[in-house]
Amino acid sequence: MKIATSPLAPAGFPDMPAIPGLHLATAAAGIRYKGRDDVLLAAFPEGATIAGVFTQSAICGAPVDWCRQHLTQGSVRAIVANAGNSNVFTGAAGLQATSTTAKAAASALGCGEEQVFLASTGVIGERMDAGKIADVLPGMVSASPAGWETAARAIGTTDTFPKGASAQAKIGDATVTIAGIAKGSGMIAPDMATMLSFIFTDAKLPAEVLQSALNRSTAVSFNCITVDSDTSTSDTILLAATGATEHPVIGEFNDPDLSDFKDKLTQVLTDLAQQVVRDGEGARKFISVSVKGAASNRSARKVGLSVANSPLVKTAIAGEDANWGRIAMAVGKSGERVVRDSLGISIGGVLVARAGAAVDGYDEAPVAGHLKGDEIDIEIDLGIAWGSATVWTCDLTHAYIDINADYRS
Amino acid sequence: MKIATSPLAPAGFPDMPAIPGLHLATAAAGIRYKGRDDVLLAAFPEGATIAGVFTQSAICGAPVDWCRQHLTQGSVRAIVANAGNSNVFTGAAGLQATSTTAKAAASALGCGEEQVFLASTGVIGERMDAGKIADVLPGMVSASPAGWETAARAIGTTDTFPKGASAQAKIGDATVTIAGIAKGSGMIAPDMATMLSFIFTDAKLPAEVLQSALNRSTAVSFNCITVDSDTSTSDTILLAATGATEHPVIGEFNDPDLSDFKDKLTQVLTDLAQQVVRDGEGARKFISVSVKGAASNRSARKVGLSVANSPLVKTAIAGEDANWGRIAMAVGKSGERVVRDSLGISIGGVLVARAGAAVDGYDEAPVAGHLKGDEIDIEIDLGIAWGSATVWTCDLTHAYIDINADYRS
Repeated sequence: MKIATSPLAPAGFPDMPAIPGLHLATAAAGIRYKGRDDVLLAAFPEGATIAGVFTQSAICGAPVDWCRQHLTQGSVRAIVANAGNSNVFTGAAGLQATSTTAKAAASALGCGEEQVFLASTGVIGERMDAGKIADVLPGMVSASPAGWETAARAIGTTDTFPKGASAQAKIGDATVTIAGIAKGSGMIAPDMATMLSFIFTDAKLPAEVLQSALNRSTAVSFNCITVDSDTSTSDTILLAATGATEHPVIGEFNDPDLSDFKDKLTQVLTDLAQQVVRDGEGARKFISVSVKGAASNRSARKVGLSVANSPLVKTAIAGEDANWGRIAMAVGKSGERVVRDSLGISIGGVLVARAGAAVDGYDEAPVAGHLKGDEIDIEIDLGIAWGSATVWTCDLTHAYIDINADYRS
Repeated sequence: MKIATSPLAPAGFPDMPAIPGLHLATAAAGIRYKGRDDVLLAAFPEGATIAGVFTQSAICGAPVDWCRQHLTQGSVRAIVANAGNSNVFTGAAGLQATSTTAKAAASALGCGEEQVFLASTGVIGERMDAGKIADVLPGMVSASPAGWETAARAIGTTDTFPKGASAQAKIGDATVTIAGIAKGSGMIAPDMATMLSFIFTDAKLPAEVLQSALNRSTAVSFNCITVDSDTSTSDTILLAATGATEHPVIGEFNDPDLSDFKDKLTQVLTDLAQQVVRDGEGARKFISVSVKGAASNRSARKVGLSVANSPLVKTAIAGEDANWGRIAMAVGKSGERVVRDSLGISIGGVLVARAGAAVDGYDEAPVAGHLKGDEIDIEIDLGIAWGSATVWTCDLTHAYIDINADYRS
């Protein structure tokens, strides 16, 4: 099945600067796809550091186990990612496949296996022939560097467009670059649409600082998106710093010199996360759900996700139906602290309900107009305290059923 | 939009005996629908007792508030239910509408308002004209009794078939009847598909005993079904006992004489709950998810619901795709205690995965054959301990999108 490019896709792949010290290469290993690159190598100089965030699933893939095991030492020389087979639920053979891939990369680069990080997406439960990846790795080390778009395409599966974002940040007087790619389409689907994101910078940062920065930025970006509420077995975000650019030494996360870097990292991750939603399976509308007045930020995020994951909210928006009662329903089922008679709901900036009832003289026309667009804003005021959060999702359409029921991706 | 009868519907409405002491009547109040009855009255003799279970939503409807407030006194003379307007998120006007309805029923029957219980389903957030219900109630008290199927049809909304079930139970040497009706289609949708169920018996049971029995039976029936994971603002189950049949006095829930009654109550509730799933919006396949080997029964139920609520599992089954990796994914995201390398999965009685990997020599053919049927069995063995549970759901099809995106119910 050929899937058309999402109508919510950006106009084109962004111009993104190279990262000093980073070598990107792609190759066709023939894991599953024919006629396209399906392996990405990101190679780093000695001294490069790494941080990672992974799926919360209890059934995670062998590459996730591998990364978690080796992340504590904080040093990286290579990231190897493949598309077409997720190497999940593959038992001892899966562990063997990760080891084979890491050994091949370590040998080609002259580094330790523990400095090689792995990510795979694709079908669950089928044994992966890691020998195919091992065969192409030596050539990738010496290959001429791949550009960002080529790299993004190599990790894509059901994605309908390649995803990239970048920013420049000041650390003291020095300028560093943050650039990343992502793949994912059913957010967080277990087959081919699992989310991966690799972020690179030429800053020189200790692994612990990098990890704190990644945790903080992920919490308000990738952890605030949902397409279909299904959590993948393979979700992986890796952030690697080459250390190739000189800047004031950063010893700890709270160093004021790191402030701009942290903001720009959040900006890049948010951009990539939103692109994943814009490529959500079957998405026709991009939906922002902003929650305020909650008991805490954490509570606000959970209320937002309850709305963003509700099939009835998502189908109503697909149908351009100003059915705000479904939003109230989804707030009510969140399990969070909610007071019915304090709840307010706005759609497209128009207040539709407050204090537990529809607003007097509610006029549906401007809301219906807003829903005809492809960027939908829902604002929820719980009216209890000061917690707030914004989450992003897409609508639930016939195309989602087409992709997931009529086709084994 | 005319919705065709679910292909999973029973062959016909069951033959169900009358309940001594119960008077059922229906009427057309014109709340929303034209040309059909939309109000149900169930009237009881003095001494009748009642128990109830309600939605867990923080945004519940005014009739739910009303029932909760009056349930503690345990005495019932009437249940009044309407279809077409849920009287949810209607503020002070909603409270007024419940009071108007209860006053009218109390006046017609010569009982206290607190002995009148209310349930409404329909659109959220629109004021309900309870005067229309008050107008028809006096005539319903003296009307010739309605049959079970007529009663079931009067409370239906997007339901494609009326739902009823009954059983007879021994209490000592006496035989009592348990009979009930239900409505619901999007399980648990906030518009017209919200679940209501009214169960009646001629047994003579204290309200506390009735409540314990209802809690126990609901836990393994209505609390084990899901269509789309969306929890309604109006879900209500009421169990009323007329006391018209003499039998040994039952003073407490653990009385051995109550054993058969408890089993038969579970049987009736399970039958009705499964009928709601069989009428799930867009359902083409009825899916049983049985979980064993869990840390506890509660944990097993949560794992089962994680699978039963997964859009990717439900679309795979709609597509008759033996994509068992999605089941593993849904187990992994449950948040419950799961050990990947102990997990086993069977579909249609065929073991497809065990100990964290596909079975050796897995043959998809018999599984694919099972998935072509309309009764799908998924068995999950967590291999940790002895907790077990079974939940029921339906597949996720284009028709669900049709019903919820293309049409305001």
